[in-house]
Amino acid sequence: MYLELDTPSLVIDLDAVRGNIAEMAETAATHGVRLRPHIKTHKMPELARMQLDAGASGITCAKLGEAEVMADAGIDDILLAFPIWGEPKLRRLAALRERARVRVSLDSVEVAAGLGKLGGPPVEVLVEVDTGQHRLGRPPGRPTADLVAEIAAVPGVAVVGLLTLAGHAYHSRTPAELAQTARREGEDLVATAELCLRDGIELREISVGSTPTARHAAGVAGVTEIRPGTYIFNDTAMMRLGVATEETAAARVLTTVIARSTPERVVFDAGTKCLTSDGVGSPGWIRAVGLPHLHMDFLNEEHGVARLEAGHHDELPVGTRAQLIPSHACAAVNLFDVAYGVEGGQVTTELRVAARGAVR
Amino acid sequence: MYLELDTPSLVIDLDAVRGNIAEMAETAATHGVRLRPHIKTHKMPELARMQLDAGASGITCAKLGEAEVMADAGIDDILLAFPIWGEPKLRRLAALRERARVRVSLDSVEVAAGLGKLGGPPVEVLVEVDTGQHRLGRPPGRPTADLVAEIAAVPGVAVVGLLTLAGHAYHSRTPAELAQTARREGEDLVATAELCLRDGIELREISVGSTPTARHAAGVAGVTEIRPGTYIFNDTAMMRLGVATEETAAARVLTTVIARSTPERVVFDAGTKCLTSDGVGSPGWIRAVGLPHLHMDFLNEEHGVARLEAGHHDELPVGTRAQLIPSHACAAVNLFDVAYGVEGGQVTTELRVAARGAVR
Repeated sequence: MYLELDTPSLVIDLDAVRGNIAEMAETAATHGVRLRPHIKTHKMPELARMQLDAGASGITCAKLGEAEVMADAGIDDILLAFPIWGEPKLRRLAALRERARVRVSLDSVEVAAGLGKLGGPPVEVLVEVDTGQHRLGRPPGRPTADLVAEIAAVPGVAVVGLLTLAGHAYHSRTPAELAQTARREGEDLVATAELCLRDGIELREISVGSTPTARHAAGVAGVTEIRPGTYIFNDTAMMRLGVATEETAAARVLTTVIARSTPERVVFDAGTKCLTSDGVGSPGWIRAVGLPHLHMDFLNEEHGVARLEAGHHDELPVGTRAQLIPSHACAAVNLFDVAYGVEGGQVTTELRVAARGAVR
Repeated sequence: MYLELDTPSLVIDLDAVRGNIAEMAETAATHGVRLRPHIKTHKMPELARMQLDAGASGITCAKLGEAEVMADAGIDDILLAFPIWGEPKLRRLAALRERARVRVSLDSVEVAAGLGKLGGPPVEVLVEVDTGQHRLGRPPGRPTADLVAEIAAVPGVAVVGLLTLAGHAYHSRTPAELAQTARREGEDLVATAELCLRDGIELREISVGSTPTARHAAGVAGVTEIRPGTYIFNDTAMMRLGVATEETAAARVLTTVIARSTPERVVFDAGTKCLTSDGVGSPGWIRAVGLPHLHMDFLNEEHGVARLEAGHHDELPVGTRAQLIPSHACAAVNLFDVAYGVEGGQVTTELRVAARGAVR
């Protein structure tokens, strides 16, 4: 399997990627909302370009460092979905604004005041709303409407919309619970925007949606934009939520069995340094493609220690290759400098993870 | 606090590093064992050099990529504590052997057979023993002695010793339990080597010890080498085990409060992309230096969401800086391209994490 690659290596099934991109683009088009994918999942300008070519209206980034890499590649419509604070970042943001349309999300007057001093045309901001993740933002309704009014009064800043991430949807136990959380994500923001309108502030952007929630939230009347990221690669977390399959899980770690210390134990040369500790404790948090009778027991930094079911102990001798699907694709991709693109079962291209390690 | 650095940044207290290096060097000297620190914790040739200058006999690496970076910096005595398998890695190992003394650990005849074909002087190998971690190796005693005999019969390979990592010691609940696990780690290997000697195979290296176990295992008669890594930086896992303090936790993530969305909630600009998910669920798995009344609730990729105790809600406004101690220093360091060295409370140097991302 991909014998020209040494292991561990990050391999990307570009056929699956194209399918994933097309499916989400169609979801957005069907519902008449804009798609602004979060590029933190892939961190590669080439894949962002594929998303734009398939109809995405722009991209979402978490960090200025990611946005700068994407702007270097000619991408000129960027949402920075993170509060930007402090002189060094504000200087970088000012420079970025000269070569791209940039919006920023935030949840405080303090951060808005910093943005307001940038000069030039007002900085377009989206106010983040806490729809249940309990990370950033105030609750929907009056608390957020009041915050919008406060931020709208900050000179140099223009509030253009509301934004949320229903991160708690990742903990949904059933498809019905997921769908309900996703619809509320949209409905809460739409209702809050109506409140703001009665306060005299018109918000034209209602931006919602992660990979598990986007397909549902896109259908809520009033939602204008969805921002899924993981869908381009998927991972076992998405498989557990029922929004991906082994076939659509496009990012895999190619690995080799380096020890068979007992009849049932299989040790791979890929651990948390390739797969991260994200998702540890969830059933099937790491999956080996095509090997349903193999179960990951634990990961150390450089070792993945798995167990074969009875009746399969003669399989997977030392030297066997396998592909492991990570629990969290975004975090796993961030551990690699290079990924290998696969098309038609062959390695066809080398992709630099250009925005890897963009911590700032 | 270090206002010349934007956040998040990795800062290394070099004064604490010097103290940590000296203390472990003294432990080894007191017990008359060699110290071969694992460099996966820091991944920086400059710090490996400090360890060697303080008396370390060589270094331990997990990956060829790490070893190559260290050899590039002139380090010429390397233990590769990982089974090396496959043509590309064997070619690299052959090249590495031309500029450094290299030993390799393994737990199978299959891996030994590959090494045996390298040519040149026999490859010196240490046979890994499973002293309770249940990762690599067979149990101590007869199972390992038999394996040693099998590997010793492989042409081109010279078995020079036994190696183990008592990784299960990390789960010790009391200092007494930790000490007992550590002593057994040494005693089990010494007893196994005696068995091998009766079989006619003399093993001159008994290599044990992680940061929590090294101080105990070094005192076991017959142990010749300890291989701790984390001790140079420490982390909250080491603090929980009672072998480190906030003062000796030398690697920290400098971060900024970017949101105070509720009176008790404090959101930092550092999440798993700086700190990893290692240790999630352990009490106090992330600590903020000097802020005992602040408790981390959860990390997302770019956010650290913490909670202030009652009576402290007026502290840490947006823009405040703090230093977070990771749960697992080795994994956190691997997320940064650059670290900033601090001496006397001032940033004095920039250190490249030269072996970061050495997955192969």
